[in-house]
Amino acid sequence: MMFDIIRSGRAILHVTDLEQSKSFYEALGFIESEADEENIFFRGLEEHNHHSLWLKKKPEPAVEAISYKVISEQDLDELEKFFISQGNDIKWLEKGTQRSVGRALRVQDISGLPLEFYAEMETVDRLLQRYDLYKGAKVQRIDHFNCMVPNVERAYDYYIKHLGFACSEYTVGEEEKVWAAWLHRKPSVHDVAFMNGIGPRLHHVGFWLKDPMSLIDGCDVLAALGYGPNIERGPGRHGLSNAFFLYLRDPDGHRIELYNGDYLTSDPDFKPIKWDLDDPMRQTFWGHEAPDSWFDEASEVLDIQTGRKLPQHEPKLKKRKPQFVI
Amino acid sequence: MMFDIIRSGRAILHVTDLEQSKSFYEALGFIESEADEENIFFRGLEEHNHHSLWLKKKPEPAVEAISYKVISEQDLDELEKFFISQGNDIKWLEKGTQRSVGRALRVQDISGLPLEFYAEMETVDRLLQRYDLYKGAKVQRIDHFNCMVPNVERAYDYYIKHLGFACSEYTVGEEEKVWAAWLHRKPSVHDVAFMNGIGPRLHHVGFWLKDPMSLIDGCDVLAALGYGPNIERGPGRHGLSNAFFLYLRDPDGHRIELYNGDYLTSDPDFKPIKWDLDDPMRQTFWGHEAPDSWFDEASEVLDIQTGRKLPQHEPKLKKRKPQFVI
Amino acid sequence: MMFDIIRSGRAILHVTDLEQSKSFYEALGFIESEADEENIFFRGLEEHNHHSLWLKKKPEPAVEAISYKVISEQDLDELEKFFISQGNDIKWLEKGTQRSVGRALRVQDISGLPLEFYAEMETVDRLLQRYDLYKGAKVQRIDHFNCMVPNVERAYDYYIKHLGFACSEYTVGEEEKVWAAWLHRKPSVHDVAFMNGIGPRLHHVGFWLKDPMSLIDGCDVLAALGYGPNIERGPGRHGLSNAFFLYLRDPDGHRIELYNGDYLTSDPDFKPIKWDLDDPMRQTFWGHEAPDSWFDEASEVLDIQTGRKLPQHEPKLKKRKPQFVI
Amino acid sequence: MMFDIIRSGRAILHVTDLEQSKSFYEALGFIESEADEENIFFRGLEEHNHHSLWLKKKPEPAVEAISYKVISEQDLDELEKFFISQGNDIKWLEKGTQRSVGRALRVQDISGLPLEFYAEMETVDRLLQRYDLYKGAKVQRIDHFNCMVPNVERAYDYYIKHLGFACSEYTVGEEEKVWAAWLHRKPSVHDVAFMNGIGPRLHHVGFWLKDPMSLIDGCDVLAALGYGPNIERGPGRHGLSNAFFLYLRDPDGHRIELYNGDYLTSDPDFKPIKWDLDDPMRQTFWGHEAPDSWFDEASEVLDIQTGRKLPQHEPKLKKRKPQFVI
Repeated sequence: MMFDIIRSGRAILHVTDLEQSKSFYEALGFIESEADEENIFFRGLEEHNHHSLWLKKKPEPAVEAISYKVISEQDLDELEKFFISQGNDIKWLEKGTQRSVGRALRVQDISGLPLEFYAEMETVDRLLQRYDLYKGAKVQRIDHFNCMVPNVERAYDYYIKHLGFACSEYTVGEEEKVWAAWLHRKPSVHDVAFMNGIGPRLHHVGFWLKDPMSLIDGCDVLAALGYGPNIERGPGRHGLSNAFFLYLRDPDGHRIELYNGDYLTSDPDFKPIKWDLDDPMRQTFWGHEAPDSWFDEASEVLDIQTGRKLPQHEPKLKKRKPQFVI
Repeated sequence: MMFDIIRSGRAILHVTDLEQSKSFYEALGFIESEADEENIFFRGLEEHNHHSLWLKKKPEPAVEAISYKVISEQDLDELEKFFISQGNDIKWLEKGTQRSVGRALRVQDISGLPLEFYAEMETVDRLLQRYDLYKGAKVQRIDHFNCMVPNVERAYDYYIKHLGFACSEYTVGEEEKVWAAWLHRKPSVHDVAFMNGIGPRLHHVGFWLKDPMSLIDGCDVLAALGYGPNIERGPGRHGLSNAFFLYLRDPDGHRIELYNGDYLTSDPDFKPIKWDLDDPMRQTFWGHEAPDSWFDEASEVLDIQTGRKLPQHEPKLKKRKPQFVI
Repeated sequence: MMFDIIRSGRAILHVTDLEQSKSFYEALGFIESEADEENIFFRGLEEHNHHSLWLKKKPEPAVEAISYKVISEQDLDELEKFFISQGNDIKWLEKGTQRSVGRALRVQDISGLPLEFYAEMETVDRLLQRYDLYKGAKVQRIDHFNCMVPNVERAYDYYIKHLGFACSEYTVGEEEKVWAAWLHRKPSVHDVAFMNGIGPRLHHVGFWLKDPMSLIDGCDVLAALGYGPNIERGPGRHGLSNAFFLYLRDPDGHRIELYNGDYLTSDPDFKPIKWDLDDPMRQTFWGHEAPDSWFDEASEVLDIQTGRKLPQHEPKLKKRKPQFVI
Repeated sequence: MMFDIIRSGRAILHVTDLEQSKSFYEALGFIESEADEENIFFRGLEEHNHHSLWLKKKPEPAVEAISYKVISEQDLDELEKFFISQGNDIKWLEKGTQRSVGRALRVQDISGLPLEFYAEMETVDRLLQRYDLYKGAKVQRIDHFNCMVPNVERAYDYYIKHLGFACSEYTVGEEEKVWAAWLHRKPSVHDVAFMNGIGPRLHHVGFWLKDPMSLIDGCDVLAALGYGPNIERGPGRHGLSNAFFLYLRDPDGHRIELYNGDYLTSDPDFKPIKWDLDDPMRQTFWGHEAPDSWFDEASEVLDIQTGRKLPQHEPKLKKRKPQFVI
């Protein structure tokens, strides 16, 4: 690889009502870095970059882009070369075009997901030790994107061979085909995961919490503020990734995962952990089955050039939901 | 009242396989006080009495008795007088008949539940500060019994008027009738709760944990030992009682609640908290609906004289399950 | 006993700067029930009574009274009779004299501590499930008073024989004399504790927290707000009482304990736990020795009749500080 | 840099009594991977490599080496070239010489610390989800080394310029000289820290815990097993690094830090955080001052060639202890 992707950086989501979104995400404990009539920029408590979640007011909910931070401007040039060599239709957003970031490269990935790469983002005060500002689930930082794609193996191969990701854990279904995969650049379980399903769609954005009690506190605060119905699944523990998790739906239906657990995946001799799709401990190490909505619903993504919603494709592998749940 | 009931004291459960039960309850963190071929006596870490859970090996699972501790032997005599005055058929088990307890009075209560009262139980080493022995969910002490009865209002009136219990919280259903009630002698939310349902049956025995993390630890340990399927409901928080809860089914289907939360109910001016049956935050302040099994299944109870299972009766109030769950 | 004391109810403290006190106690997570130019009334999150901490603006810090709640008005009359029979000089504050409480009986106890008894206090909204209002250490309720007195054995005998308290744990020093004792009416470790020292003085008021993480959160929030120097001791665990503790000094030097742990002391067959003064695990089950200030400093108390500070007396037992600390 | 150091990998400590060490480290929750008459190999619960702590039975306590894992064998060759170019006297331990690791390169670093580099270590079962084996503080993985050296600036420059480390936080003392520095290869706060002091010595080895409650649980279990006196400092929070910490002394006086907190340091635009040596929140964000032993005592290190203890040097900066502590 001639480029170095550091980590998942930010999600750009279209929402229909900024006030409602603001109330919801502040209840979760996000910090508002900046806002105007059309935008809110949120960050977690330990983040020293301007934002990791950008909400844009638009008529319809959608995913404009999921973004990765790279080491330097030169990495962006190398990524451009790579994508052009692959026949991709890239798009540059010059510095100044977007609030707080330098120039950014956008491209539809092999599954059609709208990716963005940037090297520079304004820094802001890190609030890690401003415990007096901790609220709700005390969101610390962005952790990963989880995407539903019709062909997981193709995405998996592409990210590993061409983008330099490593696999921490994966699930196989029928005929030992990869049904889902967890891939990382930073040495955690993932920066991005792919699951077999109608896509390309964004299943959720995962944010990291400092400890399990922050997740319980988050549930209590959400419920006290009337957001109980926004809790879709959890708290529970995934077998896969060992995450202590909570899944929420924001007022536009975008799914947010609150996440604690994880482990260090820095070593080249770390062997990816293989799970069988029908292993009941894979999805839920303990506790309840996921509701149907968790398997069926996800956020639609946009064409980086036209801004229109991308068409969806049926998944390649037949089984969309682990058997033990049915 | 001429007698003084202190608190819920112990449950006597019939189980079919002592080895299986032993493994399960030890995984939960119970301490075995004593055991032989036919019996296991368990206690929690802070308990200074010999046991709070007595498992007897029998051909069929059943509830032999739920027991309350009273202040003195004289209270037992007064309870005898009271029950005889009510036309009840009482039964004495003299000291020496049962392991570790003094003489005990048994009676079928107004709903048919097999009650037992005792003043004396052998004391043992309290293990509160033997943190090296803490395991699983680190069960601290018995907290309450939850019973399904056909006529909650009748049970409620009887326990308050005749047995000296106070009500902390209650649920009303159709026509403002009491659908469920939480009653206490010790100044916590409850020593016993009654819910409208086919009965008399024991819905669960609740044990108190020292903090929420012990419940999460309990889930992880249970799952690691293969007891994931025994987790029936939770973790979650009840609106009613504010309990952070986990419901488990033991190898014979007896239901155990692990419970943290509670509050002090010592004051006579504490006004019982009223909930509407269909308030979605009542059962589950946040998180998922209870599975059907939680509403339908419970342990059958025995006749104190014959040792045979008591016949079940349909509940008086029609609705057996909160509407929002259906 | 012809009277029934329920529990420790409130502390009335004189402070010199209400604004400073307000900031400090709100950082801890207290809820302000009411305030004016001369007073602030604070309560914990689960408290349904108007307040458990009353701060009065005065030129000098002092303890006006420590108060116990009794069952009924009749209990107050019986307490009056009792204290008069003992030769005590009592004082009535009629209903309406003090904000939110009914009539109150004040008396200097056998050690000179200014006690108050009341049966009635206005009820307010309990905020137990208003998790959105939880802050700092999320103080739940008042738990106990800890007092330094010159003659612990005399206080111990008096509270047990005449006021109906029971002992949960105690410490013996030289010649097996009681050096400190933990006494309760509600079935917890204590409503009041006495320690050998220059007195009568109030060592601290203890408030109960819902779990250990609330105490850690409290430390972080206090430090973030600049109150780090107000943390005098802890976090740590006492061997005695098993409390997970933190000791704070408020802006006037009054000491507040944040407290989690405890156990149920409801049974008459619970045997008080005896500790040796020089057992290093007694004071601090793990962690560091207490600073000298913790042994030397305490709040002075007022004469209920004159409002003047009571003279202090040297303790009867020579050793004021456990040997292992010296 | 022509080589890529991944992370701190293992510590090799000499201890005088293996049985005593075994009991102590097992109480902490370490997993024994292998042991014989002369050695114990310990790992944390999430570690997939054979060990991160190697205890060797020897007549005197000492630090044989602190080891870093590199990406590949080639990195070892490049490191050899580098150290030889610097005039260092290197030493190879061929594969098979040491249990479970491939060939290893040893060298005395610029401060005299005995470093070791290796690319290969046997993999073992990761026990991350064997919650039934979690004990004590449930140690998860090795995190960092903290070393006392006479010239921190020299070490700091060397590790950053020549070994590819980045600085997350640092402390300046007199004349703005670097008094202490936290340096990392993996994107956490540190793999190694240097503090001004008599050296070269190893101050402590830090191990990472999954959450704050594991640290509290660790204290309780240690105390219950009689290891209370081994707790030297904490629990508390460092301002610097935001760590929730506990410092322990093993039976030979080697210092172990249990550590939770941390944050992601992956970004090149992360600006190292500067602290003033006399900022009271630096060492202890809340809670007590460190005892003198924490500043004065550390483990002596060995010459990689002779196996003899290295001579100690006085620190370059005069002040050895922050002023506010004195």
